[in-house]
This record gives sequence, structure tokens and C-alpha cells, in this order.
Amino acid sequence: MDSASAGPAGNETSPPIRPVFYISDGTGITAETIGHSLLTQFTGFRFVTDRIAFVDDLEKARDAAARIRAAGEKYGVRPIVINSCVDPAQAAILAESGALLLDLFAPFIEPLERELNRPRQARVGQAHGMVDFEVYHRRIEAMNYALAHDDGVAPNYDEADVVLVGVSRAGKTPTCVYLALHYGIKAANYPLTDADLESERLPARLRPYRRKLFGLTIDPERLHQIRAERRPDSGYARLDTCRREVAAAEAMFRNERIPVLSTTHTSIEEISSKVLSTLGLQREMF
Amino acid sequence: MDSASAGPAGNETSPPIRPVFYISDGTGITAETIGHSLLTQFTGFRFVTDRIAFVDDLEKARDAAARIRAAGEKYGVRPIVINSCVDPAQAAILAESGALLLDLFAPFIEPLERELNRPRQARVGQAHGMVDFEVYHRRIEAMNYALAHDDGVAPNYDEADVVLVGVSRAGKTPTCVYLALHYGIKAANYPLTDADLESERLPARLRPYRRKLFGLTIDPERLHQIRAERRPDSGYARLDTCRREVAAAEAMFRNERIPVLSTTHTSIEEISSKVLSTLGLQREMF
Repeated sequence: MDSASAGPAGNETSPPIRPVFYISDGTGITAETIGHSLLTQFTGFRFVTDRIAFVDDLEKARDAAARIRAAGEKYGVRPIVINSCVDPAQAAILAESGALLLDLFAPFIEPLERELNRPRQARVGQAHGMVDFEVYHRRIEAMNYALAHDDGVAPNYDEADVVLVGVSRAGKTPTCVYLALHYGIKAANYPLTDADLESERLPARLRPYRRKLFGLTIDPERLHQIRAERRPDSGYARLDTCRREVAAAEAMFRNERIPVLSTTHTSIEEISSKVLSTLGLQREMF
Repeated sequence: MDSASAGPAGNETSPPIRPVFYISDGTGITAETIGHSLLTQFTGFRFVTDRIAFVDDLEKARDAAARIRAAGEKYGVRPIVINSCVDPAQAAILAESGALLLDLFAPFIEPLERELNRPRQARVGQAHGMVDFEVYHRRIEAMNYALAHDDGVAPNYDEADVVLVGVSRAGKTPTCVYLALHYGIKAANYPLTDADLESERLPARLRPYRRKLFGLTIDPERLHQIRAERRPDSGYARLDTCRREVAAAEAMFRNERIPVLSTTHTSIEEISSKVLSTLGLQREMF
């Protein structure tokens, strides 16, 4: 997918363009998340996507419909609209744009109303708003914890829910931040030092927290690339350094039976989801 | 919603419990995102939620169905399943659990196939996997940028897409990290100092980047609470300090016509979405 502007749809060398709009009365995150999941199932198109957030009255819905109609005229093809506005009157206005309108909530509301035996409350922007202040506050605290425990110099990990362990640049920091932001998990980050890697045993400081540990590893060639971008021509970035460190870290994880995952072909979302299920952490997602 | 374990459903003092399962052949993020959006529209229940990720074969689907059935028996009420597995055979197995099965993709695939005039490719775990390495790499770079430019001491902001400006603890850091993680935006963070706040004019270092600036403000009472948690009894946390700093920052934003948003009742997702639309940044979401 691609959000750049582009010429007319469907010449001989490039895939046909199809404009897609995510329309929401809130942030647009729900619409874009499921819309993206749906579009990944269709190959051979270049989807030119646009997010129109905070469409929370009929006037804004009319403005959005005008933009959708204009995109259809520009590209000469019917736009696709993924709509998560809760107000059916807004959906009706969007449908007048001539686009294919996919209403995210419509197919599920009626079965849920029947199952729960009560009508839904069509409140705007609840999903990603600050609904519960205490919960939100814990999430920000988790985020601050991740940033403050990103360097291995924490006095202890008593408060941590998870301690990610690995060599420098194996992917620990982005994963810690993701776990904090999305699950309110207090995730600390312990980079293995040369001294740690000499012994193939857990560093003494980590031993009391064995059940919170999760190892991250990475392909040495990939690690070499990443390190070379940051510190070209350093001993730190050399391929043989990367090979030695990764081999030692993997031996340690194996000896100590620390669960481990390679980040080479694994996204932050996948790593985070595996960490939660492996360590048995059940948390609501934000 | 609440993921804690709990006793039997529906006594007189607490709302009735309803078990909810998010089932996915990938991370479960899509299922939980839309499931959460749907459930926020139904009040008066305590939804006890569980995520079962990476259900990518029939055997795992049968295990998931057994867990769902067990939850129905434990709580004495029919579970709700939000399913995003692409394989219809897995959905059929999940349905045998007796739960209300809401299949996230089913209602949209047929209209999309008709519109795009080709069948979907039912590939597992595409939405939150590492599909495009270059795109993923830019996202991690953006994350590193946000963490490295979190303190206002950057030599310049030439590379930044956005510079968030505000007093200490107004919400800049979590927003920068969110913008990086989810949109690959290079977001720097400039905390206004006492010296900056004396003049009501933009600090000299920010003037060349006027079009990248976005101000965050906060209710002074709320700021006082947040600062007092971190440094109790400090001059920094005193309510009159907070009032003075916020008033000066808001005057600066007004004088300089910097767009501004209060974070007091606004989530990171909402702030990020507003920053993108205000500064006209169009980026795909991760």
C-alpha cells in the first residue's frame, strides 16, 4: 500500500490504483487496522489510502463524501470506504459518494444486541479515547518505566513484568516500548555485556527474575548491518563480533532454558504477542 | 473491561460477566482492536477477555474451542468469540464451541472480491507481520529518532517530521514514541525551559522549524499531580509553578500561532491523530 499521490489508474507497467478511505468519528485506528488486514488479502493493486478522522457530525460526513467523490473522479475508479462512524446517518451520507462502503460495525451490532439482550450505546470515539483515567495512567507509567529501564543499569527488576535480554541491537527497546504502550506491561531491557557473554550462565543480577526473562536473538548478518549503520567500521559492528555475541547469547538462553525468539523476520507486534503468551501475561490491549 | 478471573456471573452487586475471546492466526491485534471497539458500545457487562494468538492450524483451533467451551461452563453463560483467522475451516471448529462467533473478515470479503473482481489470497498473519522489510526498518529508525531526540538537546531538527513543544510532563514523550511506532514519523520533543518561558516568543532554535511545531498543553492541576508523583515536594511540582509555566507556554503558542492541544483528557492515540491531520502528514499506520 502507498499513500503517495499518483497518476491515472492502471497503466501497463504498474498495478492498478484503487483509492481507499478510512473514515472514523474517532482516531481512525480501528478502521485502519481492520481495513489494512482486509486489503493485505488482495494482491495486485496499489491501494492509495487516506485517513479522515474525527468525522463526528453530518457536515463533516458531507465534506468527507466530497473528498471521496473527488478521488473517484481523479483516479477514474470507484473508491473503497472503510467506515467506523457509529451514526448510521453519517454512513448514509458517505454511501452517497458512490464508493463501495464497508461499514465495520454494522454486521456485528445486531448479533451482539440479540446475544446481550440490550441495544448498543452508540457513543462516538470511545475505543481510543481516554475513557478510564486510572487505566490510562498505568499505561503512561509503564511507558516511563520502559524508558527508564532501557539500559541495564536498573538497581533491580522487582517491579518489572518482563525483562527482555539480548545483545545490543537485537530489538529489545522497540519491543519494551510496544509492550508498555499497548498492554501497560512494565518491560525492562537488559543488554548482555561482553563480561556476561563469557560465561554462558545468566548474569547474577538476572537470576532472581528467571521467570520474567525472555531472550531476543537475531541473525548475525542482520545484526552486523544494523550496527554498521549506527557505528560504521567499529569493532562493535564487525561481522565476527556479531557472530560471537549471538552464539554466546544463544548458548546462555539454551543452558538456562530462557524462552527465546529471533527478531530477524519478526515484527514488534509478533514479538510482543509471543512474549505475552509465553510468559502467561494476560492484559487488555490499548 | 477486565481480564481478571472472577466468580460466577451476575450477582446483585456487580454487572454480569461475559467471557470474550479474541482468536487470531496472527498476533490477535486486529481482532482485539475491533472487538474492543464493539464491546465499548455495550454497557452494563463485565467482559472477561482472553486473547488466543497464532491459531494457525486445525489442532490449535480445536484447543481454542476447548478453552472457549470451558469458559462457558465456568461462567454459566455463552462466550463471545471475535475471530480473525482467515481459514473458514478453523472458524467452523471455533463455532462448535457453542459461542457466539463473530467472524471479522467474512462480511467484507465477498463485497471486496466482487468490487476488485478477484478472489482474496487467504494468507495467515499478514496484517502485523514483517511484510515489507524496508518499511519496517524506517519504522524502527523513527523509533530510535524519537528516543534520541527526547530531551531538547538535538543539534537541529532538520530530519524531524514533527517537533512537539511543551512544558515538562505535558505528554510529549509518549506521543513522540507513538507517532514513531505507528506511523514511522520522526517526532522530536522540545521541553520548554524557564528561560524559554520568560519571553513568550519561540526559542531561537525552534524558529527555523515553525511548520513542524505542534504545542501540547495540560491543565495545571493535572500537571501538578503528575510532577508530584515523580518529585514530591519539589519547586518543580508546586501548583503555582505549574500554573505559571502553563500560562507562559500557552501565551507563546498563541503569539506564535503554533497549533496546540490539551492532553488533559486526550489519549495518545487522539493526540497523534490530531497532530497528523493538523500538520497534513499522510502516513500509513502500522
